[in-house]
Amino acid sequence: MKKIILIIMDGLGDRPNKELDGLTALQAANRPNLNYLSSHGTTGLMSPVASGIRAGSDTSHLSILGYDPNKYYTGRGPFEALGVGLELKPGDIAFRANYASIIDGKIVDRRAGRIQNTAELSSALETEIDGVKFIVKSGVEHRAAVVMRGPNLSDKVSETDPHSVDSSPMDTEPLAPEANFTSAVINKFLERSRKILASHPLNRKLISEGKLPANEIMLRGVGKMPAIPSFHEKYGMKAACISGTPLIRGIAGLAGFDVLSVEGMNGRVDTNYENIISSAIKSLEKYDFILINFKGTDIAGHDRKPRLKKQVIESVDSVIAPLLKLLQDTLIVVTGDHSTPCSFGDHTGDPVPIMFATDGIINDNVRSFDELSVSDGYYKITSEDIMPIIMSYSDRSEKYGA
Amino acid sequence: MKKIILIIMDGLGDRPNKELDGLTALQAANRPNLNYLSSHGTTGLMSPVASGIRAGSDTSHLSILGYDPNKYYTGRGPFEALGVGLELKPGDIAFRANYASIIDGKIVDRRAGRIQNTAELSSALETEIDGVKFIVKSGVEHRAAVVMRGPNLSDKVSETDPHSVDSSPMDTEPLAPEANFTSAVINKFLERSRKILASHPLNRKLISEGKLPANEIMLRGVGKMPAIPSFHEKYGMKAACISGTPLIRGIAGLAGFDVLSVEGMNGRVDTNYENIISSAIKSLEKYDFILINFKGTDIAGHDRKPRLKKQVIESVDSVIAPLLKLLQDTLIVVTGDHSTPCSFGDHTGDPVPIMFATDGIINDNVRSFDELSVSDGYYKITSEDIMPIIMSYSDRSEKYGA
Repeated sequence: MKKIILIIMDGLGDRPNKELDGLTALQAANRPNLNYLSSHGTTGLMSPVASGIRAGSDTSHLSILGYDPNKYYTGRGPFEALGVGLELKPGDIAFRANYASIIDGKIVDRRAGRIQNTAELSSALETEIDGVKFIVKSGVEHRAAVVMRGPNLSDKVSETDPHSVDSSPMDTEPLAPEANFTSAVINKFLERSRKILASHPLNRKLISEGKLPANEIMLRGVGKMPAIPSFHEKYGMKAACISGTPLIRGIAGLAGFDVLSVEGMNGRVDTNYENIISSAIKSLEKYDFILINFKGTDIAGHDRKPRLKKQVIESVDSVIAPLLKLLQDTLIVVTGDHSTPCSFGDHTGDPVPIMFATDGIINDNVRSFDELSVSDGYYKITSEDIMPIIMSYSDRSEKYGA
Repeated sequence: MKKIILIIMDGLGDRPNKELDGLTALQAANRPNLNYLSSHGTTGLMSPVASGIRAGSDTSHLSILGYDPNKYYTGRGPFEALGVGLELKPGDIAFRANYASIIDGKIVDRRAGRIQNTAELSSALETEIDGVKFIVKSGVEHRAAVVMRGPNLSDKVSETDPHSVDSSPMDTEPLAPEANFTSAVINKFLERSRKILASHPLNRKLISEGKLPANEIMLRGVGKMPAIPSFHEKYGMKAACISGTPLIRGIAGLAGFDVLSVEGMNGRVDTNYENIISSAIKSLEKYDFILINFKGTDIAGHDRKPRLKKQVIESVDSVIAPLLKLLQDTLIVVTGDHSTPCSFGDHTGDPVPIMFATDGIINDNVRSFDELSVSDGYYKITSEDIMPIIMSYSDRSEKYGA
């Protein structure tokens, strides 16, 4: 049986960039080690979730790890909460939240003037009502996540964001009888929150400066955190996650991965690439399966910076050289979780290059790792095929039949 | 409408072999006729059952013939029974069985010293109890299959193999109320079997020679034989199977194929290749669809003998020359049911080469039939895609829509 390192370059897939003479970031990058790996195994194109789907990092990582997002992706709330670094438990109800500005009972700005730091507001809103704990954590700008934890909670409640200005702030309503309690508790939370926000020193200060206050918290994207069978249970492997991105750490944590800390690792382009790879190699002693997520490629894609995306790929390439010596006992898999073309600035449904490198398996005709070259390779698959192929190439699968 | 010959070289897919200068058996084989066929149609890679799945011959043949194994593969028992040459009927309950050695009430060897020939023990155990017929047939070494035939039988019973030595032999228990009768009958069968085996001349002889007796039969892998819609019903084709392998003959028989006899045909590497092909050609007069299974490639793979696997492929290649003249009216399909790489000695989840050869269809750019060449071909499919493609290329499909 072989051990596995799965490297996901977030948003890896790209489209032609004028700034790179019509090349994708991956084509333009100097990538001798990725090319070496691609010539020592099989390659192909992988559609995250399914062909043409513009997968998020959440749905794609779930699917790549063998968790059908149609079953386990229960709304954006729970995954937004994981993304801001909250730890969720099965049964938790989670919302995406916006801080908004209300004047004379009407919403005047759904983003509260894109307020920069709401951490102290979120702390002030945390409470417990009728045995239900409310956990509130700020995200970027006006965004936050709200998690409810307690018995007998339902996610069959309406959202409170009217999605338009000049409307009045809304309470929630139960959408099914079993949600009556949940809905009532949320409305108590909203009533309490309005009072606290109205008198909060930060809002008084904003108003005194002639700025919009963040005096309403609006809830949407409700979802109930599902129970997820552990990765160990599914595959019999002891697994670790190495990522500086809260969402990825959260998903891996849910699946029972050990979520490792690495000095200098963050979810940005200036993460410590070298420490991440050396930590992964060291972790092979203790773990069977190591998931690495590099976020920089996605960030550069969202920021429409093809040269930066190319640099991130080159940074990854330069540190993975030590992996080339491990191919006898290790299966190295490299792919992205979706495409984030710099020309588009957001995720697209384009398939993403993938490679499976290890000794002893078929080497397909591909000697170069990029969107075009791997289209001559062995596989045209979706993300749900990845784990079965990994299990087979690492000599870990049960036979289906005889 | 064209007639179809589907040739399955069992376990065809391979990986690089040192003994063959890093080539797969198929790459290394002299195969002018396979190459000719591959240049007269479309080719590709086919994943049996699904990507990465280590399919057995049973699940894969079911899937190739259009029977979803998730629906029709109901446990190893029924297919093990087919594999030893028993004819099963829908509703039959079948087990895999092991002859084991019991001394002083404890299992001392779960394989009865890998006893070589248990045929007379199996015959002695056949009986009828409370209207339920027990059919027992020996397989290789200590292995056997036990089939129960009668009304009101259920497969919701526990197995009787403790899977460890030093345990006591077990009786079965019902796992659902509807299995109470079945469980009681099995336990009567086991009680009777123990008496017969204890006093059987073969066991007395083994003991007198200081060898372990085969005095317990342990049951596992229970399954109920499903009713399978006939191939003729599904596809409107009169079908025949030409194979020397009991499992394949059994599956084809279940699907309503005529299972043909051919002089010199067996399930080994020394089968009569020429007679098989000439029988297939002759059978085109009477049948629309002919399934041929050559087992030798799989046997060589399990035995880790790449040169033998290459020879088997060359034997097939040399006898199929007459098929090249049939392409005007016949669709020739060649593939494997799974990969059995000689370097691994068992099935893997690697995709398998496939080709569809007939006059008048697209000829893709592939001129050579092997794992790498066909990866440049038309298709990246799974086994469930094969029958629809066959139906279309043979001008037999109904239009879906207008």
